Amino acid sequence: MNTISNTSAALSVVNIGADLFADAIEAQGFAVTHVAWRPPAGDQHALMTLLADPRVNEANKIAVERMLSAHPVIVDVRPAHEVISALQKHKLLHAGPPIEWERMCGPMRGAVVGACIYEEWAKDEPEAVALADSGTLDFEPCHHYNAVGPMAGITSPSMPVFVVEDKTQGNQTFSTLNEGLGKVLRYGAFAPEVLERLSWMQEVLGPALGRAIRRLGGVDVRAIMSQALQMGDECHNRNKAATSLFVRQVGADLVETGRSSEETAAVLRFIAGNDHFHLNPSMAAAKAITLAGANVPHSSVVVTMARNGVDFGIRVSGLGDRWFVGPAQYIQGLYFAGFGQEDANPDIGDSAIAETSGVGAFAMAGAPAIVQFIGGSPADALRYTREMYDITVSSNPLFGLPSLDFQGVPTGIDIRQVCRLNMLPVINTGIAHRLPGVGQVGAGIVYPPMECFEKALSALAM
Amino acid sequence: MNTISNTSAALSVVNIGADLFADAIEAQGFAVTHVAWRPPAGDQHALMTLLADPRVNEANKIAVERMLSAHPVIVDVRPAHEVISALQKHKLLHAGPPIEWERMCGPMRGAVVGACIYEEWAKDEPEAVALADSGTLDFEPCHHYNAVGPMAGITSPSMPVFVVEDKTQGNQTFSTLNEGLGKVLRYGAFAPEVLERLSWMQEVLGPALGRAIRRLGGVDVRAIMSQALQMGDECHNRNKAATSLFVRQVGADLVETGRSSEETAAVLRFIAGNDHFHLNPSMAAAKAITLAGANVPHSSVVVTMARNGVDFGIRVSGLGDRWFVGPAQYIQGLYFAGFGQEDANPDIGDSAIAETSGVGAFAMAGAPAIVQFIGGSPADALRYTREMYDITVSSNPLFGLPSLDFQGVPTGIDIRQVCRLNMLPVINTGIAHRLPGVGQVGAGIVYPPMECFEKALSALAM
Repeated sequence: MNTISNTSAALSVVNIGADLFADAIEAQGFAVTHVAWRPPAGDQHALMTLLADPRVNEANKIAVERMLSAHPVIVDVRPAHEVISALQKHKLLHAGPPIEWERMCGPMRGAVVGACIYEEWAKDEPEAVALADSGTLDFEPCHHYNAVGPMAGITSPSMPVFVVEDKTQGNQTFSTLNEGLGKVLRYGAFAPEVLERLSWMQEVLGPALGRAIRRLGGVDVRAIMSQALQMGDECHNRNKAATSLFVRQVGADLVETGRSSEETAAVLRFIAGNDHFHLNPSMAAAKAITLAGANVPHSSVVVTMARNGVDFGIRVSGLGDRWFVGPAQYIQGLYFAGFGQEDANPDIGDSAIAETSGVGAFAMAGAPAIVQFIGGSPADALRYTREMYDITVSSNPLFGLPSLDFQGVPTGIDIRQVCRLNMLPVINTGIAHRLPGVGQVGAGIVYPPMECFEKALSALAM
Repeated sequence: MNTISNTSAALSVVNIGADLFADAIEAQGFAVTHVAWRPPAGDQHALMTLLADPRVNEANKIAVERMLSAHPVIVDVRPAHEVISALQKHKLLHAGPPIEWERMCGPMRGAVVGACIYEEWAKDEPEAVALADSGTLDFEPCHHYNAVGPMAGITSPSMPVFVVEDKTQGNQTFSTLNEGLGKVLRYGAFAPEVLERLSWMQEVLGPALGRAIRRLGGVDVRAIMSQALQMGDECHNRNKAATSLFVRQVGADLVETGRSSEETAAVLRFIAGNDHFHLNPSMAAAKAITLAGANVPHSSVVVTMARNGVDFGIRVSGLGDRWFVGPAQYIQGLYFAGFGQEDANPDIGDSAIAETSGVGAFAMAGAPAIVQFIGGSPADALRYTREMYDITVSSNPLFGLPSLDFQGVPTGIDIRQVCRLNMLPVINTGIAHRLPGVGQVGAGIVYPPMECFEKALSALAM
């Protein structure tokens, strides 16, 4: 829609919404002021009802206050089955909303195969596939156990996991240990080197970190993230500062509790060699933050966004454990040399918990260097963060961004505002190859499908 | 000066230079566009001569190209007397331009006393003062030996120093190891705890770092600074990222070459506990960068800015080893609780080598969080960097700032532009208490005295 006012000598035009009107008028030589506007998404009656309902505002306030009060601390590293008691033989956790073996994408199937060999439930790929085909394996989302896993997110009983405790609410959340880049299980690789690394992580890395962290009395992951957000990380696709701060904090205790200097040096070298090592504890912390805001009746705040490589699912505070699902999207970004869009798997992983908690792409204003990795300019990074204030309930003063005069990151996505403004939460993410085991082929920006929010909106209004 | 044009209905005023004219006109209700302008500084004939001399531009190009080509790498940590052969019994190096014992400020006198006791040239303060009073001690600037020291900068023969080698030019530069905050020698403290720490640094920290760095084959300090500048450091008063990256890089080799896990843990804990640990290697690297640009005939590029707490001195590429000196200034900034301007010593230390090389306050656009420490707003941090492009010859593409679309830091201060624009290089710095041993009492912004540049300008034109 546009308005032409011709009260003075020159024609001045304000165009609202679709660009094509503005373009047509500009082509005729007139100045046009463009106002971004899109019609609201979802059921309009449900939207009006929820926007007018004072209980929703009140519930959102409570949900976000709880999120902002969360104080996640890494308290231990333990084998997953010790802290997630349901995770026993033939059970695997995966990223995103529920999905059956038959519908899983390439990287997730590869990771399942790898996990079966790693757990010695199968001796090779054909045996693992047969096991999965036979229905013997029990698949469930990581999120159902307050766990989160990047990319395929496959978590099996013997894998060591970070145990993060919310010192305010008392909840525990979990995430696996980051394997690094290249051929890794989370991208569906199960070559011998991948399985050897996983065994070393189980036997050496996990126990060493567990000893050091217990001796330290915990690592304040919220404090690390808070500092890292002032050091160019956004705690999703840039984790260089957080990883460095983590090494710096645990180094001396790793040495003092190490079984040998050889082992300790290997542990330090492994962590130091992986700029993304701290992604996983940041994800568990983000899970702790969002979990704190879950299950507030009437609240329209999003507490989960997760993808399994086929479906994108969200969960909303006032709607309990229900998933609202739509198709996972393709990522717009930069590809590594030799790869292109035809290689890409749709959006995958639990790492969008970062954005759900207020970091990741929501904090990109503090991480301008990330555009070298995901594309765009530093100005885009600022814009992404600024836009997200329009669809969030509050901001997190503990996660202040220097480039925005220390304003806190936008926190608490409100499905009502997403639908009203027709503006989706922005996510930055790695791009997985669609075939198992190739690994990361790029990184970029992706959005959830709007239908997740539309479905949740209707459900909340019922 | 200002211009009033009254050709249209409304009066429109452009004011150039002094604010008071603009203020007076604004007070009368007219709109004023203010253009910052100050009359040039220094001898105008000398300035015109040098601006018109093509040899100066050519020489500056060479000087700055050499600076940008410098590749400083930490290759070792050794006792100072092993790498600076002139540094033997009763000789001490100090920050800034040359100064005699009688004119030294409180913190520098305290550091001299501490160094004499540490070296066992005196058993206590009275003996040390008597030694200094007797003329037995030989004082010389750190810079005369390509060394740099923060604050008092006192460097004695037994102190371990970082050995930084410029892999392009082959020069070696040196700096002591950072003691941390609180009671420390560089602020003039010589209490038993200060001397005990210095002994531990000599016996444990220095040798441990030397072994690890030699085994690593060197630590690329330019690469660390380049990353740190994208992680919120400006490599002078914010060194958190660089310190973390350094620990991360040397950790495993410290473990593997350590004499015991107890000692290695103590070394890691000491470095991890000091956000400014990497200031000193960054200073030695900055010295290597500026040294590369020194001694180019006709060049008007500044290659040294240093303060001894009484005098501020600069040296210029085309003027060899001559110092051009003026009074050290007081710092505008934030004081720690319980301290105020009456406690402050004038500007002190060799750390302005940071700004001379293009980092420090020149790179503040990349370190907005620093304003919490030195005062001002993130917008000021951007402005400081932007202004410095006006008085520098080039920018350093290896030190790109994400917030300025990866533009390199302004590099190569041209005394001609400083005088022409009457715009001084900005320096951010710690504020030392004027009495020995109290330590840091704040941090802020300071400028050199213009007379350093005016004297150098006249000398270069001769």
